Amino acid sequence: MSGYQHILCAVDLGGENLAVASRAVELAKQYGAKLSLLHVVEYIPIDLANELVLPQQQEIEDQLVEQSKKAVASLVSHLDLEQISENVISGSTKAEIIEFTKAGKVDLIVIGQHGRHGFSRLLGSTANAVLHNAPCDVLAVRIGA
Amino acid sequence: MSGYQHILCAVDLGGENLAVASRAVELAKQYGAKLSLLHVVEYIPIDLANELVLPQQQEIEDQLVEQSKKAVASLVSHLDLEQISENVISGSTKAEIIEFTKAGKVDLIVIGQHGRHGFSRLLGSTANAVLHNAPCDVLAVRIGA
Repeated sequence: MSGYQHILCAVDLGGENLAVASRAVELAKQYGAKLSLLHVVEYIPIDLANELVLPQQQEIEDQLVEQSKKAVASLVSHLDLEQISENVISGSTKAEIIEFTKAGKVDLIVIGQHGRHGFSRLLGSTANAVLHNAPCDVLAVRIGA
Repeated sequence: MSGYQHILCAVDLGGENLAVASRAVELAKQYGAKLSLLHVVEYIPIDLANELVLPQQQEIEDQLVEQSKKAVASLVSHLDLEQISENVISGSTKAEIIEFTKAGKVDLIVIGQHGRHGFSRLLGSTANAVLHNAPCDVLAVRIGA
């Protein structure tokens, strides 16, 4: 068994990402592995009447991506590692994490995990979905315990 | 954030435990952490008629525990680490892993994880239950991918 070579840290840009990303940095250093940070913008336009297709929806998504890029860059500036690959992608969180993992030959995914009774069930279910579908090891970092 | 100090590797004594335990050994070395191996004997006597309480049931459970102790010792003999704590406990796998984690102040649980389409759905659901209930980080090591 060889050590980890490419670690992917998936972040949701909530307040506790620094703890998750710091753990990923620590492991990247231990293993001398490449570290990629990924945030997925999951923007679903609300159109209950199924009638309004607003031209500004693309604009809103573009703005979300821009804001997320800044947030990821800010997070990276707090991390103690020279080379970190920053990635912001629009799409389904689970699908994009798995896609990135396969394309980048990631061998360890680091993701935050609230407990079952935590306030972020969405994050919990993402960690779950990633756990079941990832082609590699998954480290769920406990946050807000 | 401090590094991991006590790593618990939960094993089911199937054929792929060496890969999972080897990853736990590697991390224990990286962090200079204590490593404990735990196997839970989950023996549920079949008594569909709810009538037969056989005196040999305790004997069967004791035999399973003895066999498991030997299997754990054999696994440990294949691992490249001086000090490994060997533990075999009877009970519910999920509950005993969580109990051991709390009592031993474990800060990282390492557990094997088959994919959703793997042959061991039981192991998958254990990893899931541990993920949701653990008071610490959980590393799901991909096996049989």
